[in-house]
Amino acid sequence: MGISYREAGVDIDAGDDLVERIKPFAKMTRIPEVLADVGGFAGLCAVPGGIDEPVLVSGTDGVGTKLKVAFLTGVHDTIGQDLVGMCVNDIITTGARPLFFLDYFGTGKLDVAVAENVVKGIANACKEAGCALLGGETAELPGMYAAGEYDLAGFTVGVVARAKIVDGKRVAEGDKIVGLSSSGLHSNGYSLARRVLFDAMKLTPSDKPEKLGGKTVGEALLAPTRLYPRHVQAVLAAGVDVHAMSHITGGGLPGNLPRVLPDHLGARLGKPWKRPAIIELIAERVEEHELRRVFNLGIGFAFVVPADQAARTVEALVAIGEQPVDLGEVVRMPDGTDFEARVVFP
Amino acid sequence: MGISYREAGVDIDAGDDLVERIKPFAKMTRIPEVLADVGGFAGLCAVPGGIDEPVLVSGTDGVGTKLKVAFLTGVHDTIGQDLVGMCVNDIITTGARPLFFLDYFGTGKLDVAVAENVVKGIANACKEAGCALLGGETAELPGMYAAGEYDLAGFTVGVVARAKIVDGKRVAEGDKIVGLSSSGLHSNGYSLARRVLFDAMKLTPSDKPEKLGGKTVGEALLAPTRLYPRHVQAVLAAGVDVHAMSHITGGGLPGNLPRVLPDHLGARLGKPWKRPAIIELIAERVEEHELRRVFNLGIGFAFVVPADQAARTVEALVAIGEQPVDLGEVVRMPDGTDFEARVVFP
Repeated sequence: MGISYREAGVDIDAGDDLVERIKPFAKMTRIPEVLADVGGFAGLCAVPGGIDEPVLVSGTDGVGTKLKVAFLTGVHDTIGQDLVGMCVNDIITTGARPLFFLDYFGTGKLDVAVAENVVKGIANACKEAGCALLGGETAELPGMYAAGEYDLAGFTVGVVARAKIVDGKRVAEGDKIVGLSSSGLHSNGYSLARRVLFDAMKLTPSDKPEKLGGKTVGEALLAPTRLYPRHVQAVLAAGVDVHAMSHITGGGLPGNLPRVLPDHLGARLGKPWKRPAIIELIAERVEEHELRRVFNLGIGFAFVVPADQAARTVEALVAIGEQPVDLGEVVRMPDGTDFEARVVFP
Repeated sequence: MGISYREAGVDIDAGDDLVERIKPFAKMTRIPEVLADVGGFAGLCAVPGGIDEPVLVSGTDGVGTKLKVAFLTGVHDTIGQDLVGMCVNDIITTGARPLFFLDYFGTGKLDVAVAENVVKGIANACKEAGCALLGGETAELPGMYAAGEYDLAGFTVGVVARAKIVDGKRVAEGDKIVGLSSSGLHSNGYSLARRVLFDAMKLTPSDKPEKLGGKTVGEALLAPTRLYPRHVQAVLAAGVDVHAMSHITGGGLPGNLPRVLPDHLGARLGKPWKRPAIIELIAERVEEHELRRVFNLGIGFAFVVPADQAARTVEALVAIGEQPVDLGEVVRMPDGTDFEARVVFP
C-alpha cells in the first residue's frame, strides 16, 4: 500500500462536503449579472449595462488578528462580515458599486462546521453589500496553521463610470467632513488591543469590565465591521457632489483622511464625538497619539462634501436611519506638513 | 508610557518600506487600461474597449504547502509565479484574457526582503501573463504563523466577450484532446509529495536522487507553475473553434478534464506520455490510482477541439515553441459513470 493524500493531511472529501454546504449561501447572494452554471474553473459576472466607460475597482484585505478573538471565543459567523467590510469599504471610496467578492480560507486541518460558519458570515455580508459571492478557495495546508486556526483573505471588484470616479482631486478648503460611526474597532489594531486587554489588563473574553456597560470583552471585540455601501449609495443618489470618501482603516483618521486630500490640504476635526466603550477601555493603557494612529476611534467612514451640500448629505444619511457625525472641515496646511499631521484633532 | 503597536508586534514602518520597494514591480506590469495615480484605497482598471458584452471572469487560489519547500530552501522569488499561475490558468479556461491580479501575503513577522522577493516573482509572472499587478495586502499577524513562514492568496480578473465564452457545452464525441506539458508538480499535491520525499524516503532538498538526473529535490519541487495565457491566445488567434479548456490543477486529470465535458462524455487518453522525473520518483511510494487524482502527471493544461482542427491547434502551439501532447479523444460514457471514471487511462 502506498502513501495516500489523506494520510498526508489533506482530506478531499471534507473539502467537497464544504463546497456542497456553502452552495446555497453563494446562491443567495446572486445578482442579475452573475452567469451561473458556467465556468467550472472560475466565476463569471457580466459588466452591468448602462455605465459609460465602466472602470473596475478592486481591493484585497484580511481581518488581521481579530481572528484570534474568533478562535478564543469560538464565534465564527461574524468574522466574514469583517472580511467583506474591509474590502468593500475600500473600493466604494471611489464611488464604485460593489459587484462581486471572493474569499480565501487557509487552514491546517479543515473543520467543515467552522468553515461553513465563516462562509455564511461572508455571504450574509455580501448580500447586505449588494455583491455576489462569486467564488472562493478553501486550502488545507497541514503544518501551516496552529490547531483550530485559519487565515482569511478577501477580494472584491466594483464598477463605476469613468466620469463619476470620486478621486479627491476637487476637494477644496472649506469642504465639510461628515463621518459615519464605526461599530467598534472594526478589523484594525487587534494585536495592540489584545496585548492591552488580555496581557496587560489580564481580562478574558467573558469578562465584563464596567466600562463596557454589560458587554463582554469578547462581544465588544467581535462587533462586526460596518458595511457602508448603502450609505454611499444614499448620498450619491441624493445628488450630492461628493468630493472624496475615506475608509478609516489601518492607520486611523491621521492615516486615512489625508489619503484622499490634495497635498496642501488637511482636516481640522471639530468638537469631540463619543468614542466606543472599547476604545475608552484600551485608552487606559495606550497613549492618545498611538491610539489615534492605530484605531478608528469610532469613525469608520467619512465623506468630504462642498459646505453647501453638507446638510443634504446629512439628510440623506438620516433618511436611512444613520446618525452621521459632523467631523470638521478641510483647511489649508503649511507646506511640508507631515502626512499624519494633516489631521488636526480638537 | 503606554503600550505601542510596534511592541504588540506590528511594525508599520516595515510595511511602508515594503510598499515603496514593490512599487516599481507593480509599475512594470501596467497595462494601458490601468488608471494609475487614482484610488488611494483601491486599484482601478478600465474595461477594455471593443469587447461586445464584456463578461468578467474571476478566480482565487493559493499555492498550498509548496510554500514549505520555499521556506526549507530559502528560495522565495519563484513561488509568486506559482500563485499567478494557479489563478490565471483557471480563468483562461473560459477564453478570458487576464486583466489584473491582486495578492494577499500573510505572515507573523514581516521580513521585508522575503516579501519583496515574493512580490517580485508575482510581478514577473503578471508581466508574462499580460495582466497588471493592481494591488495587494501585506498583513502582519503576530502569533498566527511560525517564524519565517507566510501564506499567499492570489486573485485575478479577466475579460471575455459574452459570445466567445468557452464553456464546454459544444464538446462532442470524437473531439481531440491536446495537452500542454507541466513543469513538474505545479502547485498541487505538496503535502503528499513532502510526506513521500522528506518523511518516507528521508531525502533533503539538496539531495540529488538518480531519478532526478542531476537536479536536487528542492529544485525539482520548486519548478514554477507554467503560465498558459499565451498558449490559449495563440490557439484562439489561429481561429480554432475551441470547445473546452481544462487547467489540470488539484484533482489531476480525472478531477479536471470532466469539469468541462458534458455529463455523458468522457476522455479516453491515448498512448502514455513522458512523465516528469519528480512524478516517477514519488510514484515509488504512491499507488497509481492515488498518483493520478493528486498530481498533474506532467500535463498542466488541455484543449478540447473538433477532430478536424486538432492539426491547426498543434501547429499554433508549435509556432510559439511548444511541444503539445496528443492526449486522446472524447468518448461517450455509460450512464451514471462516476465523475473521475470519465477519464480512461491507457
